[in-house]
Amino acid sequence: MLWSGWGDPAKATPLPEPVAGLLRDLLGVRPADGAPVALEDVRPCSSRLDEAALAALGEAVGAAHVRTDDEARVRHTRGKSTPDLLRIRAGETSDAPDAVVLPGTHDEVLEVLRICTGRRIAVVPFGGGTSVVGGLAPQGISAFVALDLRRLDALVSVDEVSRTAVLQPGLRAPEAEALLRERGYTLGHFPQSFEWATIGGFAAARSSGQASAGYGRFDEMVVGLTVATPEGTLDLGRAPRSAAGPDLRQLVLGSEGAFGVITSVTVKIHPVPASAAYEGWRFASFDRGAAALRRLAQDGPRPVVLRLSDEAETMIGLADPGAIGGGLPDAAGCLAVVGYEGTPDEIAARRAATRAVLSEAGGEPLGDGPGEKWEHGRFNAPYLRDSLLDVGAFVETLETATFWSGVPALYEAVKAALTTTLADAGTPPLVMCHISHVYPTGASLYFTVVSASGVAGPGQGGETQGEGDALAHWEKAKHAANDAIIAAGGTISHHHGVGTDHRDWYAREIGPLAMDVLRTVKHRLDPAGILNPGILVPPAGQE
Amino acid sequence: MLWSGWGDPAKATPLPEPVAGLLRDLLGVRPADGAPVALEDVRPCSSRLDEAALAALGEAVGAAHVRTDDEARVRHTRGKSTPDLLRIRAGETSDAPDAVVLPGTHDEVLEVLRICTGRRIAVVPFGGGTSVVGGLAPQGISAFVALDLRRLDALVSVDEVSRTAVLQPGLRAPEAEALLRERGYTLGHFPQSFEWATIGGFAAARSSGQASAGYGRFDEMVVGLTVATPEGTLDLGRAPRSAAGPDLRQLVLGSEGAFGVITSVTVKIHPVPASAAYEGWRFASFDRGAAALRRLAQDGPRPVVLRLSDEAETMIGLADPGAIGGGLPDAAGCLAVVGYEGTPDEIAARRAATRAVLSEAGGEPLGDGPGEKWEHGRFNAPYLRDSLLDVGAFVETLETATFWSGVPALYEAVKAALTTTLADAGTPPLVMCHISHVYPTGASLYFTVVSASGVAGPGQGGETQGEGDALAHWEKAKHAANDAIIAAGGTISHHHGVGTDHRDWYAREIGPLAMDVLRTVKHRLDPAGILNPGILVPPAGQE
Repeated sequence: MLWSGWGDPAKATPLPEPVAGLLRDLLGVRPADGAPVALEDVRPCSSRLDEAALAALGEAVGAAHVRTDDEARVRHTRGKSTPDLLRIRAGETSDAPDAVVLPGTHDEVLEVLRICTGRRIAVVPFGGGTSVVGGLAPQGISAFVALDLRRLDALVSVDEVSRTAVLQPGLRAPEAEALLRERGYTLGHFPQSFEWATIGGFAAARSSGQASAGYGRFDEMVVGLTVATPEGTLDLGRAPRSAAGPDLRQLVLGSEGAFGVITSVTVKIHPVPASAAYEGWRFASFDRGAAALRRLAQDGPRPVVLRLSDEAETMIGLADPGAIGGGLPDAAGCLAVVGYEGTPDEIAARRAATRAVLSEAGGEPLGDGPGEKWEHGRFNAPYLRDSLLDVGAFVETLETATFWSGVPALYEAVKAALTTTLADAGTPPLVMCHISHVYPTGASLYFTVVSASGVAGPGQGGETQGEGDALAHWEKAKHAANDAIIAAGGTISHHHGVGTDHRDWYAREIGPLAMDVLRTVKHRLDPAGILNPGILVPPAGQE
Repeated sequence: MLWSGWGDPAKATPLPEPVAGLLRDLLGVRPADGAPVALEDVRPCSSRLDEAALAALGEAVGAAHVRTDDEARVRHTRGKSTPDLLRIRAGETSDAPDAVVLPGTHDEVLEVLRICTGRRIAVVPFGGGTSVVGGLAPQGISAFVALDLRRLDALVSVDEVSRTAVLQPGLRAPEAEALLRERGYTLGHFPQSFEWATIGGFAAARSSGQASAGYGRFDEMVVGLTVATPEGTLDLGRAPRSAAGPDLRQLVLGSEGAFGVITSVTVKIHPVPASAAYEGWRFASFDRGAAALRRLAQDGPRPVVLRLSDEAETMIGLADPGAIGGGLPDAAGCLAVVGYEGTPDEIAARRAATRAVLSEAGGEPLGDGPGEKWEHGRFNAPYLRDSLLDVGAFVETLETATFWSGVPALYEAVKAALTTTLADAGTPPLVMCHISHVYPTGASLYFTVVSASGVAGPGQGGETQGEGDALAHWEKAKHAANDAIIAAGGTISHHHGVGTDHRDWYAREIGPLAMDVLRTVKHRLDPAGILNPGILVPPAGQE
């Protein structure tokens, strides 16, 4: 993983000059002040852990698995939101962990939690490091370790009769898929972070994949969980569903490491489909397209992939860097991508039934081209972001969900909040959106915002202000969008989670009594408050 | 509702004499000692609530909505398990509420909780009164009110775009269906208790309906909840799914009134299907039939109803009193019932696809007869139980679920535990079972046990011992079955809930740390411990 950006540096693609020109002309993007700092020049402050603490941790997991070198600490600093990247590109490491600890077993995790509870050292579970909501930057703490779970990377077992598999949390998604595919199975979980995210992260943050229309969200795939907490082990899930009390799996899913460290996940698996097909459809408007997707979600047939870009996203064709500015042949209307899986015969039958619905709903078939282009570029957006940051643009995403009847108002409110705030700051943005996941009762909206990083100041030779400026602008816009989401009845996050970034709005979403329930659960499992302090639940004393 | 049995007394059907003869010959069932007591002869002890408490409650909900008359109290005594019926038939009212309180609004519920918190009066939410797990018999209390929610019986709103409806908790299922059907919709939720159970009860106890293969369980239908607690109101659910923290709806669902009183439920709704069809299939063995159901659950197509009786249940044909002893034409093998819904064309297509799978899996089609017979008698079993009790038989049900690979061992273990324990007690039972619900990863098992009520004592003229005997025998058998469920890795309940009857095994199922999490949640929402004390969570001081 690129320490200051996304993914495998070998996959980076600089933006073609015409695109940079477009950004310049459309949004006033100007080249940034200079190159990011080099990794070897980034120096976090001295570790706040004393020798005794490091020795105790070394005894728990093996001395080789406690790392305090600069590179390890920098590579575990914050996540992958755009503000995170801008800070780390500037060499800002105030949120660096004091050590990186790599346990190899559930019992080692328990032991690390015991040591850290005794010494009041905070513990931040670290999977792929892909949080975009401040989920790796604890608050109100004196020292913390990043608990990197990469050594817990086994496919423990496959139950072919029950179609379940037991996976360890540090297994990255591509490796999990590869191990399952050797046995003929797939998870069917392909979020945009697929290449780097881990099984434990999917569970802890309720991940939602691009094929969720067909396979469901990750929290719908989980049937069992083992969780190490400072107070002992939780072992949950004896049946697909039960009437025996609340579903406590659903209390751990989405707890973002604040209640415990997930050390084992039992998930549904599916036979690898024989083939897949993707196609594009054009709708005259976002509303018309949304109505068509709603029909499929409510009455079927249900493709495995269903997404709909609004007019702006369709025009820009953001998913494919090479196609920016020419998403659709004549850049009009809204592009929907529909994906099918199964045997060729099954696909043909489902396609025919789906096409009948979409045609009746006013869709115009565009053939396989746009669908295959989307499929080919489905994990590319974070790489594209790096290139955009390199040329001085600011780009970030945010997302929400609500019931179908509230979708139009939610869409308008968030778009208006982002546009107005950034325009007022002198950096009018391009705001794009797509429906990324559909349910019978509602849908999620995923927004992408692109703007100049800062205002071209008079007398400054056309140079933009620094990243501090961009961060301040974005913070204002993001807060306005969050306010708009809550006011319009949406959830503060459908994909990304709460972290620290969404915490205040999450508290408004669930209300003070529900927040107190979470606090009381956390206190029971983590009385010293060492687990991800400030993430999900406000830190002690700040309530 | 019949106070001492099930349902509408007009629907009661006495067992035909040949059936009574069969029970006599097969299980040694002998006529009971005498008729149950009459309602007017049942006298609960004096109410333990003083005038001041009753006046305060009357002020909260209106004096007419606080009832302390014997009939109201007797009609709110315990639930509808067989032990509950045997006790109430004998006039045993030690668990009678001290008053029945009927609030008309959410705010009235809050006010009742405030009054009862201040006066340390326990509150037991009462919907249809159909609990079969001791969910209406609080423990460790001095006085309690039954909070009957029947006045909260509105269909509040229908959102046709989102396909959701807001329902009040006291709405009984048939009325909810009727109100929705006027608008063209159905919930698709038809548990055996359908005729009497309420929306709030479905949610509080995670109800599972007979069409769950098609519509899902009730906890999968709920997208929003309002809950009145002694500490205020919880208002949960802004989207079908969210990544914003744990799914707190799933903490309330299954909380059985111990955390709060559900005052509003937002559920998915579905257009009423144009038609329905049911058919029977025969499999050579329970294992073969289970494998066939598993194939449908995992790879589709998925009918809306899927159930499979084992050899004993098939032979007896319990679901249809008229057919006892002649379930299948030649009484061999295992009967599966498969149900379809949709337009006639849709049904024809799905039937064809389903038949291909079932035939390949070794099934023999029996035509529509057995399916229609099942459909016709689907809510009859509790009426049949009354008739069996009347002739001196003991009959009770219990159920569990686990993952597919564990189903055969779970089935054998529970059957053996029931058979051995009751045979050792001198009342060898007939143990029948069916797979009632299927999931891609597992299934539930629903057992029915019939035996003589007691041992024919020598020198007692062939009369059986009293209901105390039957209760003691059953308690032993039920505990053995519970132990077997936990040892075999099953959940202690897939349909019925925890109540007081399953509480100790539930604690073993989830473990002490998870139980402590529930206790801490309860304490936060109900610090005085007035809500359903002893149900789900052990009462304070008994931990």
